[in-house]
This record gives sequence, structure tokens and C-alpha cells, in this order.
Amino acid sequence: VRVTALSGAATGKGNYRHFMEKELHEHPVVIGETLRQYVEPATRAVALPPLPFDPAAVPRLTVTACGSAFLAGLVGRYWIEGLARIPVEADIASELRYRDPPLAEGGAALLVSQSGETADTLAALRLLKAGGQRTLAVVNVDESSMARESDARLLTVAGPEIGVASTKAFTAQLSVLASLAIGFARARGRLAPEEEARLTAALLELPGHAAALLEDGRTIQALAQEVAPARDVLFLGRGNLYPIALEGALKLKEISYIHAEGYAAGEMKHGPIALIDPAVPVIALCPSGPLFEKTASNLQEAAARGGRVMVFTDAEGAPALRRFAERVIELPRVHPFVAPILHAIPVQLLAYHVAVLKGTDVDQPRNLAKSVTVE
Amino acid sequence: VRVTALSGAATGKGNYRHFMEKELHEHPVVIGETLRQYVEPATRAVALPPLPFDPAAVPRLTVTACGSAFLAGLVGRYWIEGLARIPVEADIASELRYRDPPLAEGGAALLVSQSGETADTLAALRLLKAGGQRTLAVVNVDESSMARESDARLLTVAGPEIGVASTKAFTAQLSVLASLAIGFARARGRLAPEEEARLTAALLELPGHAAALLEDGRTIQALAQEVAPARDVLFLGRGNLYPIALEGALKLKEISYIHAEGYAAGEMKHGPIALIDPAVPVIALCPSGPLFEKTASNLQEAAARGGRVMVFTDAEGAPALRRFAERVIELPRVHPFVAPILHAIPVQLLAYHVAVLKGTDVDQPRNLAKSVTVE
Repeated sequence: VRVTALSGAATGKGNYRHFMEKELHEHPVVIGETLRQYVEPATRAVALPPLPFDPAAVPRLTVTACGSAFLAGLVGRYWIEGLARIPVEADIASELRYRDPPLAEGGAALLVSQSGETADTLAALRLLKAGGQRTLAVVNVDESSMARESDARLLTVAGPEIGVASTKAFTAQLSVLASLAIGFARARGRLAPEEEARLTAALLELPGHAAALLEDGRTIQALAQEVAPARDVLFLGRGNLYPIALEGALKLKEISYIHAEGYAAGEMKHGPIALIDPAVPVIALCPSGPLFEKTASNLQEAAARGGRVMVFTDAEGAPALRRFAERVIELPRVHPFVAPILHAIPVQLLAYHVAVLKGTDVDQPRNLAKSVTVE
Repeated sequence: VRVTALSGAATGKGNYRHFMEKELHEHPVVIGETLRQYVEPATRAVALPPLPFDPAAVPRLTVTACGSAFLAGLVGRYWIEGLARIPVEADIASELRYRDPPLAEGGAALLVSQSGETADTLAALRLLKAGGQRTLAVVNVDESSMARESDARLLTVAGPEIGVASTKAFTAQLSVLASLAIGFARARGRLAPEEEARLTAALLELPGHAAALLEDGRTIQALAQEVAPARDVLFLGRGNLYPIALEGALKLKEISYIHAEGYAAGEMKHGPIALIDPAVPVIALCPSGPLFEKTASNLQEAAARGGRVMVFTDAEGAPALRRFAERVIELPRVHPFVAPILHAIPVQLLAYHVAVLKGTDVDQPRNLAKSVTVE
């Protein structure tokens, strides 16, 4: 048994106002501890435990989950398809289990759940097993039903999560899925050792970046002041940051009761752009990288129609965005592969600070339960 | 050249206040004319034109589109996977084109677009062709770029659509996709002739049901009175009605500027349930059928938390829903396979009447263009 920074403080709030605040501040250690399970820091190679299927031979993967865990799965889809070239189908567990999907012979499934007890995801696990799929659960609780019933489980090292809105468990899930994508890509001969070292190095930098982000709380607090009066918010992103836009919207809904909705930035002009007016802030994830120009152009359209654009980017992306955005928040510049993990932190922090300003019950938002063990 | 009910009135509004109202009233003829292309009324068998791929052998399909056409594609995914057992990946065109998805050898793609000129969908078509996929476009304009550049095209017979928010083109797209699913299923030996006759009979009943629905406008107008003051609305559905919940939300956004969001009913408890209060109507699609109990139970949860539930169902589903729903609207009882086409009509009508009550520019909503020919 290794004593980690998580073990001691598991049960109290320490000096934090809310469990959620404490858990947000555990992002660096949780990402670090989770990566430590799956990445060799010396060789910068991913080292996965034995898997119940051969990633070099698997024809197709199904990723299923609920809530934030599903959004982690959606990021996993971008990573695994992009890097390992395995077709991945991502589906909400409550949909998958009732639609009797055609499964691939020799296929495998990834189930993602903090508690390992989410009713719909557990039912989907059983259905996928019965359908001949090999199953791999990404869970935070080793004694959980999903850990026991799946063919293998990969643990997130998030420690107990008390706040109902998931925070550190989400970045831990992403850390596992990123490691999986790299491991799968190598197994399929799709990743040179130098590129693997580059990607794992980018992952291993994240705890430091996360800590720096959390230390300077004022920027996000100032943004929260702008967002708190809004009744409606749009969150936009492209590519592997599209699911993080969905996560930002989900978190804001859950704890601040603001009606935030996430959208793929390229879809905005096919409908949601009609909503844009100064009362509906547009929050976007737009770091430099291959999708920068496209996303920035969507945001400029929103600004041209009176939208108040608030954007997370990096030093390279900031100047172009400052021309039209009301607020530009610079995050550390990272490899685009790891951008979803980095960006998850400020969008969750934003939801937290907005909720505090609004005086909602942050750790126990109305109508929600921590693990949904009923349908 | 056959003269249809659509040909004459193509250019004017006739006695209607708006093009959208006129086009809504063309649902029956458009569904009928489109089905007439693909279903033999005498034999009740689907008759597809030559396809650029063999549905009995195709390993996987990719469906891609933007806006409402994408939502039609999502319904198509439920139909084709469920009936023909072909794995279908549905992806927003602006996402697909930049993520370089792993495509199946010998795979095929369906592209859906009213104009056949939607920039992102056209770019996706070219990318999919370059990736070795056989391409089939479902378009309303025969001379369009997509009709010309795809390996084959299936026409919707919707006539010109002038209102910016798509209405009749959507049900026409659904009519084509339903026919395709049936044709694919038969080609794969998955559909007995009696079952095919049952499904096509259910399709061929739709124009009559649609006409009856449109004749009695008062029910939806009364519902619109309840919805118009809301600033936020949730739309819920399960299975093949989940995309119709998304369509109802999209249409309300587009023309009434109400922030409506569609959700899979089973996901509500993983976040959006926190939004529920009497100011946020919950509109649901819940006909009798295999998913009735599960959806009704989600709606009951919403009602128990103070949500005002307004639900579209049928005579069989109505009594159970009346116990907790504020409004229960009975639609004709149809085969669950064709329910998405039927339910699309009242949710679009609702958006229309809400917009009229709010006095927005129904045919030319702010910030939107009819066909988005730029990225």
C-alpha cells in the first residue's frame, strides 16, 4: 500500500468551503497518480496491464457511459480513432441498452463510471457481455459491480469523490483513456517510440499545468462574475474539445442551474446562432492548433451578431481572438492531444465559482444523486 | 413529368401567413410523394433504385449531415442498425471532416442535405469518397453538387422549401431513410415479406395521419400558449424519438429564440434534471410501445421535482401520463418504427405557433441562412 496525497484527506473538507472545491484542487495529484499507473516516467512509454482483447486485432470498440463519464468516453473516441485507427462507437448507456445495436464479432467495449454502479452503464455492460463483447471497465471503485463483472478493469486513482458533480474523477478517466489510446496505437504499429514519448511527456506535464491554473484562481473568478447573471450560456468547441464544451455546459447546469448547452462549434450556424444576443454568453475552447482557424471563425460570427464571446486559448491563439472576444483567458500551451484534460479544469472551476456566486448548494445540487443506481 | 400538388403552389404563400406554415401543411403530400418513389403500394414492397454498394455485403455505414438533416440521419441510424443490423456511425459533418475517421474497407456513406450544397456536408462527401467509401446522397435538389458528386443520389420529393427552418424536407428525408432501412434489411435476409408489408403499410398511413393532425390546429396552438412565455425548455425522448426531441428543440431555438435543449430521456437524471423548475417546461415524446414505461418513469421524476410535463403520446399511453402530466396530447397510434415521422410534425408545428405568438420573423429568423454554403 502506497500512501498518496489523496489517502489522508479523504474524509474532510480541510480548509476548503466545499468538497467540490477541495476535489478541484486535487486535479494535479489525481492526474499524476492515475498516469503513474499507466505511464513509465523513465522510458516515457505506456505500460498497460493485460487486456481482455488484443488491440492490434479488435475490429471495433463500443464506449458507453452516462453523464460526465460519457463525455470522457466521447473524448476517448476522438483519441482512439485518431491515434489507434480503431473504429469507436460512443453511445449513451440508457440508449445503447434498449436499441439492441449490431455488435462486431470479436469486438470489445469500454465502460466508464466513477462509482462502477451506475445502473444504465452496468446494464449495458451485461448486455455487451451477453453479445459476445470483451469488456473493459474504467472505474474509480475497485470493489464495484462493474469492476467485478467486466473482463478487466482499469482503475482511476481519484480517491473518494464526495461532491455530486464529478470533477477529479473526470480528468482521471481522461488520463486512463489517453493512456489506452497511446497503448492501442503502439500495439497496432501506428506510433513511433519518439511520438509516444512526445505524447506521454505532454501528459506528464499536465499536473504541473493544472497546479499553476488552480493557484491563480482570480482569472476564473472574474469570468464567473460575468457569467453568473446569465440565464443561458452556449459552450463551443471542435474536435476533442467538443466533448469538453459539453462537460462545461453540463457542470454549469448541474450546480448553478444556468441553462448552458454545449455545441460543436461548426454546428452553431445550423441553429443555435439564432439564440445569440448579449444576454447569452458564448464560452469557447479555442487553443492554437489545427482547428484554431475554423473555431475562431465560428466565434467571430457569433461576435458579429452581438454575442459576448469568452474564450479559453493559449498565448499563441490569444492575439487573434482579442480582436473580437470580450474575454480571452490564456492557458498554458500544450500538445493538442492533451488539451481536453487541461481545458476540463477551468470549465469545471468556472461552474464552481458561478455556483458559489449564486449561492446554490454546490456539493448537493437539487434533484441530483451522486451515483445513479436506478434507471 | 407528373404534375403533383407541390408543383403549382411552389412560389407563393397561397392563403398562408408564412412559407413555413404552408410548408408544414405540405407534410402529407411530401411524405406521400416521397414514399411513392420508394414503396410499391400494390405489393407493399420497397423498391430502391440501383445502389452504389451491396447492402448485403457492406460492413459499415457512415451517416453525416448538418442541422436538421443530421437529426434525420440519427433517426436513420436507429432504423438501419435496428432493422438491417448494419453498424452505422452518425457524425456531424463539421466534426467528421476534421477528425480523419478510420473508415471501413468496402464501407459506404449516406449524406443528407436539403439543398445538396451544405458546405461541411459537401466537404465530408469528398473526404469520404477519397477515403474509398461508396457515397449515397439524400437530397432535395437534383442538380445540386452533392447529387452530382455522389456515386448515387436518392431524391426527396419535398418541392422548394422557402422557410429557413426545415420542415417538410425533414419528413421527406425520414421517408427516404425509412425506405432504405427496409430495403437494406430485406437485402440482408432480415425481413420477412409480411413484416415488410406491415412496415410499409405503417409508412403509407402517415400522410393520412399527418393531414388529420394538421387539420386540428387548436391543440398545438393551446400548447404554444403555454410554451411561449418560457425562456428555457427541455425536450425528451428515447430511442428513435430521441433525435425528434433534438429536432423539436432545434426548431424552437431557430424560430422562437427560446433556449430549448433536447436530451435522451434516460440522461436527464445525470444532469439536466437540476434545471427543472416550473419555469422550464418539459416536452416529451412518449407513445405506447416498448420504451413507454422507461420514458414515462423519467417524466414522472421530472413532475415530482416540480416540472411541468407536456407530452405527446397516443390513446393507449395517455391514461398513465395524465396522472402527472400537465398536458397530454394524443396523436394517432402508429407502429413504433414510423413514430419519428409522425412526431416530427407536431413538434415543428409547436415551434411555428410559439414563434407566431412571439412575433418573430418566422421565415427569416435572425442570424440564420437557408443553406449554409460556407463553413
